[in-house]
Amino acid sequence: MTAPTLADLEALDAADPLATFREAFDLPPGVVYLDGNSLGALPRATAARLAEVVGRQWGSDLIRSWNTHGWIDAPQRVGDKIARLIGARTGEVVAADSTSVNLFKLLAGAASLRPGRSTLLTEPGNFPTDLYVTQGLERLLGDRLSIRVVAAEDLPGAIDEDVIAVSLTHVHYKSARRWPMAEITARAHAKGAVALWDLSHSAGALAVDLNGARADLAVGCGYKYLNGGPGAPAFLFVAERHQAEIRSPLTGWMGHADPFAFVDDYQPAAGIRRQLCGTPSILSLAALEVGVDLMLRADMAAVERKAGELSEAFIALVESRCAGLDLALASPRDAAARGAHVVFAHPQAYAIMQALIERGLIGDFRAPDLLRFGFTPLYTRYVDLFHAVETLRAVLAEVAYRDPRFRNRLSVT
Amino acid sequence: MTAPTLADLEALDAADPLATFREAFDLPPGVVYLDGNSLGALPRATAARLAEVVGRQWGSDLIRSWNTHGWIDAPQRVGDKIARLIGARTGEVVAADSTSVNLFKLLAGAASLRPGRSTLLTEPGNFPTDLYVTQGLERLLGDRLSIRVVAAEDLPGAIDEDVIAVSLTHVHYKSARRWPMAEITARAHAKGAVALWDLSHSAGALAVDLNGARADLAVGCGYKYLNGGPGAPAFLFVAERHQAEIRSPLTGWMGHADPFAFVDDYQPAAGIRRQLCGTPSILSLAALEVGVDLMLRADMAAVERKAGELSEAFIALVESRCAGLDLALASPRDAAARGAHVVFAHPQAYAIMQALIERGLIGDFRAPDLLRFGFTPLYTRYVDLFHAVETLRAVLAEVAYRDPRFRNRLSVT
Repeated sequence: MTAPTLADLEALDAADPLATFREAFDLPPGVVYLDGNSLGALPRATAARLAEVVGRQWGSDLIRSWNTHGWIDAPQRVGDKIARLIGARTGEVVAADSTSVNLFKLLAGAASLRPGRSTLLTEPGNFPTDLYVTQGLERLLGDRLSIRVVAAEDLPGAIDEDVIAVSLTHVHYKSARRWPMAEITARAHAKGAVALWDLSHSAGALAVDLNGARADLAVGCGYKYLNGGPGAPAFLFVAERHQAEIRSPLTGWMGHADPFAFVDDYQPAAGIRRQLCGTPSILSLAALEVGVDLMLRADMAAVERKAGELSEAFIALVESRCAGLDLALASPRDAAARGAHVVFAHPQAYAIMQALIERGLIGDFRAPDLLRFGFTPLYTRYVDLFHAVETLRAVLAEVAYRDPRFRNRLSVT
Repeated sequence: MTAPTLADLEALDAADPLATFREAFDLPPGVVYLDGNSLGALPRATAARLAEVVGRQWGSDLIRSWNTHGWIDAPQRVGDKIARLIGARTGEVVAADSTSVNLFKLLAGAASLRPGRSTLLTEPGNFPTDLYVTQGLERLLGDRLSIRVVAAEDLPGAIDEDVIAVSLTHVHYKSARRWPMAEITARAHAKGAVALWDLSHSAGALAVDLNGARADLAVGCGYKYLNGGPGAPAFLFVAERHQAEIRSPLTGWMGHADPFAFVDDYQPAAGIRRQLCGTPSILSLAALEVGVDLMLRADMAAVERKAGELSEAFIALVESRCAGLDLALASPRDAAARGAHVVFAHPQAYAIMQALIERGLIGDFRAPDLLRFGFTPLYTRYVDLFHAVETLRAVLAEVAYRDPRFRNRLSVT
């Protein structure tokens, strides 16, 4: 792709079917926010919604709101809405707990679906919590379960008949590399294993199709592309065909068949509700629901298309405007193999990101040397890319000017 | 105790050192709220605090707020504040996840402290989630661990050298019976077991003294007496002496020694932070912190004293004004053996509670036949008891009038 001009970008914004969504967010002036993949921006409707839930529901109606305002059903109600964003059916998703806790439920749950098997297969460099939670389960279960970590290129061939679950993040949090979900799931199924997908970096950014891919289990994050607020409840998905059989290890009262009977013996609820554990966080779910409702108004195919176009245009601009400034693309070049963010490596990435943030371009540093930029299709404009890359170029030029290693190269830009 | 008159109750309010706290809550008019032990009332400061966290911290400062507004430390900061309410030290408590999830962490954690032992000891009729979570852990660990459920009167004598942990709710959610924490903990220690206390019905209501009782582990609820809002984050306590050794089975990234190093291998953080799992829920923690800050301004000895006086006066009023109406006290009569709520049994308890709620007296029904009334010392006035008991009497009289079984008795009241 040739680098777009500012006029090109303005034309893309003018033709963007998602352009009006930006108005639904409360974005600070003077900032280009390319970090919605870490913390999504604030929907304008969230503050009023929270004020209503706090003031009227909690303050005035108090305990009665569990029934009269549907608090008790919130994890399922919000889950059903998220389901529509990720190719799942009603009754296959709940919004609850954190991604980490939900991973634990589903990894142990997967083991309950595949008795006699003992391997959880994943890749090195997966998002840390995915690895850590698996390691914690392995440690807890002693010799009954072991984690096997195989590099991405060898992983498909490493699925064997001892594998309980192939547990992968759909879009890699650093590189943005996208696993072919249907293909890997089919390879897992061919060996009798289940596929567990972490959608943290794809739900709300791509047109995820869990049932189209025959995925078995999934988890994902509420505070990134779903714009649910800092530490928003996460979600989990269990395909309908597994729901009667799978058991959660976290058998709190909200997953009981009849939680308000207050009986002594645990009896799992039917369907997805057995994946609930403790009392749901109503304020957090209310904020998350606003973000999800907003996302539901968008066509997810258009969202994925724009994510691809934004990141492609960004790469082209960076490679044209910042040539010779020591940046190296560390994401797949093919948009179809990538999520909605892009990373560039630079030996001084940490200092550069600090300088970018000071100048109002907010992205993320990821150790050891990555500059990460996320392109949230609902509120990122094409023209934002132009300003972002100009800021990046200015900072890189300054870094290069100060660094004797780059002194010569700078003279050519 | 003789039943107080309205004038007596007014005098008690006039002399109440906690009386001014009621102004700090936003209570609906025309309601006597005796259910703060199920969902605490809304502090007036909460709405503004949430608006600030949402609008300025999330909306304007976005991802930077993890550092600039102390989001990343919120679980420990709020935990340290809760510690001061329950006789714990700085660094012994975190606010995170749900009570159920925290129970799972600490029950499995207790097992890691007592290798070679296999029994988790509790009582029948404990709060359901406490039983269910223990059963879930037992099921997950197969023959390595078993739950033993022994009736309260036999429980102290049932602690033996196979017991990992004695796991009890300090104040029973139905009867309000209070376990003698120091005594039971000492009996556990005498057999080499640890004591795990669920403080859901005592934190914020009684002058809990975990370290005074030499308690080992504890969990508790943020949405009852701490007034943190519906489904507020819970908390957990690990005595300093166990922190280096105990392992959480839920090894999410926030419990890692260096979460932002993004390395592949889990290494538990030092101290209480290893009990964290996923990304903390910032909005919920902000609301909880308001409730905890308010509670910190009260003297906990005065809180416990008032809780006892309120419930004692309520019992006396009920037994005087509702005599012959088929109510039977189902809580301990001695305030020192009781928490801050009281239950009365009545064969038509469900219908009666519905009628009470319609008339603005909010308590709880607990199956099969209990009317539960909670006395939150920060916002319950002594005079509220008078109006509550008059409402109760009117409803009971109506029920009795409609029920041929009680026709004769009614004529005497």
